[in-house]
Amino acid sequence: MKLNCILKTILSFLLFFGFSSILNAQQTVDILITNGHILTMDSGLTEYPNGFLAIKDNKIIEIGPHSKTQLFTATKVLDVEGDLVLPGFINTHTHVSMTLFRSLGDDVEDRLHGYIFPLEKEFVSREMVYLGAELGNLEMLKGGVTTYADMYYFEDEVAKAVDQIGMRAVLGQTVIKYPQADAKTAEEGIAYAEKFIKKYKNHPRITPAFAPHGPYTNTTETLQKIAELSLKYDVPVLTHLAESKKEQDVIAQRSNGLSPIAYLESIGVLNKNLVGAHVILANEQDIAILKKYHVGVAHNLSANIKAAKGVAPVVEMLKQGVDVGLGTDGPMSGNTISLMDEFSQVAKVQKQWNKDRSLMPAVEVIKMATMGSANVLNQGDSIGSLEVGKLADIIVIGTKSANMTPIYNPYSAIVYSAYATDVRHSIVDGKLLMEDRKALTIDEDDVIKRAYEFSLKVKQALISQGKPIL
Amino acid sequence: MKLNCILKTILSFLLFFGFSSILNAQQTVDILITNGHILTMDSGLTEYPNGFLAIKDNKIIEIGPHSKTQLFTATKVLDVEGDLVLPGFINTHTHVSMTLFRSLGDDVEDRLHGYIFPLEKEFVSREMVYLGAELGNLEMLKGGVTTYADMYYFEDEVAKAVDQIGMRAVLGQTVIKYPQADAKTAEEGIAYAEKFIKKYKNHPRITPAFAPHGPYTNTTETLQKIAELSLKYDVPVLTHLAESKKEQDVIAQRSNGLSPIAYLESIGVLNKNLVGAHVILANEQDIAILKKYHVGVAHNLSANIKAAKGVAPVVEMLKQGVDVGLGTDGPMSGNTISLMDEFSQVAKVQKQWNKDRSLMPAVEVIKMATMGSANVLNQGDSIGSLEVGKLADIIVIGTKSANMTPIYNPYSAIVYSAYATDVRHSIVDGKLLMEDRKALTIDEDDVIKRAYEFSLKVKQALISQGKPIL
Ligand SMILES: [Zn+2]
Ligand SMILES: [Zn+2]
Repeated sequence: MKLNCILKTILSFLLFFGFSSILNAQQTVDILITNGHILTMDSGLTEYPNGFLAIKDNKIIEIGPHSKTQLFTATKVLDVEGDLVLPGFINTHTHVSMTLFRSLGDDVEDRLHGYIFPLEKEFVSREMVYLGAELGNLEMLKGGVTTYADMYYFEDEVAKAVDQIGMRAVLGQTVIKYPQADAKTAEEGIAYAEKFIKKYKNHPRITPAFAPHGPYTNTTETLQKIAELSLKYDVPVLTHLAESKKEQDVIAQRSNGLSPIAYLESIGVLNKNLVGAHVILANEQDIAILKKYHVGVAHNLSANIKAAKGVAPVVEMLKQGVDVGLGTDGPMSGNTISLMDEFSQVAKVQKQWNKDRSLMPAVEVIKMATMGSANVLNQGDSIGSLEVGKLADIIVIGTKSANMTPIYNPYSAIVYSAYATDVRHSIVDGKLLMEDRKALTIDEDDVIKRAYEFSLKVKQALISQGKPIL
Repeated sequence: MKLNCILKTILSFLLFFGFSSILNAQQTVDILITNGHILTMDSGLTEYPNGFLAIKDNKIIEIGPHSKTQLFTATKVLDVEGDLVLPGFINTHTHVSMTLFRSLGDDVEDRLHGYIFPLEKEFVSREMVYLGAELGNLEMLKGGVTTYADMYYFEDEVAKAVDQIGMRAVLGQTVIKYPQADAKTAEEGIAYAEKFIKKYKNHPRITPAFAPHGPYTNTTETLQKIAELSLKYDVPVLTHLAESKKEQDVIAQRSNGLSPIAYLESIGVLNKNLVGAHVILANEQDIAILKKYHVGVAHNLSANIKAAKGVAPVVEMLKQGVDVGLGTDGPMSGNTISLMDEFSQVAKVQKQWNKDRSLMPAVEVIKMATMGSANVLNQGDSIGSLEVGKLADIIVIGTKSANMTPIYNPYSAIVYSAYATDVRHSIVDGKLLMEDRKALTIDEDDVIKRAYEFSLKVKQALISQGKPIL
């Protein structure tokens, strides 16, 4: 018995030190995602059907097949049970604070002058911009967006909300020649933007930007001044571009018949910092100009067709090598701002528009929503794909719902079958922001309640003005 | 003390009988929905912003403003906290069992011959049809569909699955001139259909039907025989109609240049029993014929554009008074079969196609998905709207998610902002089938697990045939 006991003790010690040595060999990371079907969206579209991914601080430090999981140990292990792991989606164009006006005037002919402008005149304030950003951030986070580009007023309030929730964003302060709540003139708008840019230039997740509303709503001088400052500060310039007939007409008159894109070239404001939203009315020459100056394009298909504005020639742009990303436009246009809601529509409408069902396959749509969008925002080196050394902006899409069953082609399943509500986890900059659909850095019920209360004030205002709630 | 006690006793009796009399005055019902924003979808689009609805047996027996709620007591009270209450959505065209092939060959040029036909040849069986129907029923139930029209093989297996889950359906047994798993010839198909129709003719929720695959895949004689039998049994005839160029060519050759619709008129098979799916290639004369014979149209927009087949002239059909409902087509075409997924696409694409953002407003889309679809299936007297005396097919759509906040126009919110996953409760034929997103009459996890296992067999077969999983 005694000998037996001694042997047992020795065995215990051996086992203990054996385990310890294994433990010591393991690298400790912050988050470990295991049992994922990983779609890296890297240039070779590498997949790990049963893979793992390790995050330390705010970066991806390893990614590979399941067999290597044992080399890591982590504070937080997310066993995703075969679900899909992807880079977070990047929404290249929205006006997040307008969530508070969502579903107003959707089918009205002159919605802009009938609803948007009067509402903005009455209700845009620092508080409104912040609350709307909270609501929109929540919606995007829950729908798999980890980075977005925004254009609005009081953009520093959007920045506060983004900082708070922990997402990544390119935030453009609007410059427009008409008086707004935050600036009476374009000059004031530029000054506001400069101050905002200086304040946020070194934020780890927020990229401040200029946002001239459009070529036709700003003077040549304003556009040139912004281009010059954007190079000085090395920040993006977000703008609406080649969106409407009216814009075409105004610019043609101003420029002896040039298209909006050719006009921007002629005044010397095109460079890689520029992101044009919509770009519906672009011919071959326009597309060649965009390519030449590395201008990025934000394709907002569903908002464009809802307004009957046309279908942007994205198939041709991609063929010519223009950087194209996806956007939702604002929630008074779109109406949801989770990028996934665009996927199936982009694929289907582009197929119909180009009369070819094999065009714009699912994987192309996911490419645009990830690396495409990252390149548009000049952040392709740090986000847009799951690769070692890149920032850890990662989402997990569930595969156990009826609509996601079965999955033969994961890209098809995401594009044609998934709802934004199938997104299960979301990680931005290495931090878990949503776990099993619970938002961790924002009080969901409270935001929704405050947004609802705001909407009652808007309703009251509309009723007192005798305006129908359409 | 004693007198006090006697008084107390008397008071107790008075209180007791007082309450009793109130209780007696209350009518006891089976289900009471309270605090709903009720969109009845009746002909006057009556709304009760804070309303209730009472269900007894399988019927709606009362509906009105909140103040009248106290007249009812119920075994089951659903306080829906301001959420939207509507008639269940009616999917007028699908092939439910094909859920098992979903996401295969989505972007492939000749998907029909490359994937669908070979897969069906190898895998269609009684077991497959039942399992696929279980999966599709679950998906539709969770997405707010309470009634659907189906066309497939072994349709009696779909009927078993529908009977089991408790939904309502029009189930069409396919008749086609090529040999299939359940019938070698069109004659065998007709015999199969007759047997099926006799068996289910008096089912309270299932309407059996003939489903000639299409005009071009059946002979004139078969189409005439089916029309005759459909009048004899008084059952619907579901068919694909005016869907493709190929169909146009085959029929033109057969009929001295007639369009598919004009050809069907010429052979005397048009009547109110007929439901034509797609009807993309219809000119003014065709539309006039559809109207004249009260033929119903199932509009499957998203499947049509995904296949680049065109946009059905639905705006014109509605203008001419043709009954138009919405459908999803099968899950190898669509790819989800919850009708709500069609809503925003129908509105937006029709606006773009007709170059007018005010066309096809949200309320028109919901009309098509409810009363429109009910009329297409000749069930407008019993379902499609919330009215006293109608069957209790009712859904509740949640309003507390970020994407559904805020709501100015409830129709807009449903069409442009809601996900199928926002559907909270579902009632069919007076029975609660889903409560707070939990399906009550089907084991969700088990169905999804079995469907997943089936998909592994399909994958294995594709791999062994050297066919890429596209
Ligand atoms: Zn915009
Ligand atoms: Zn079909």
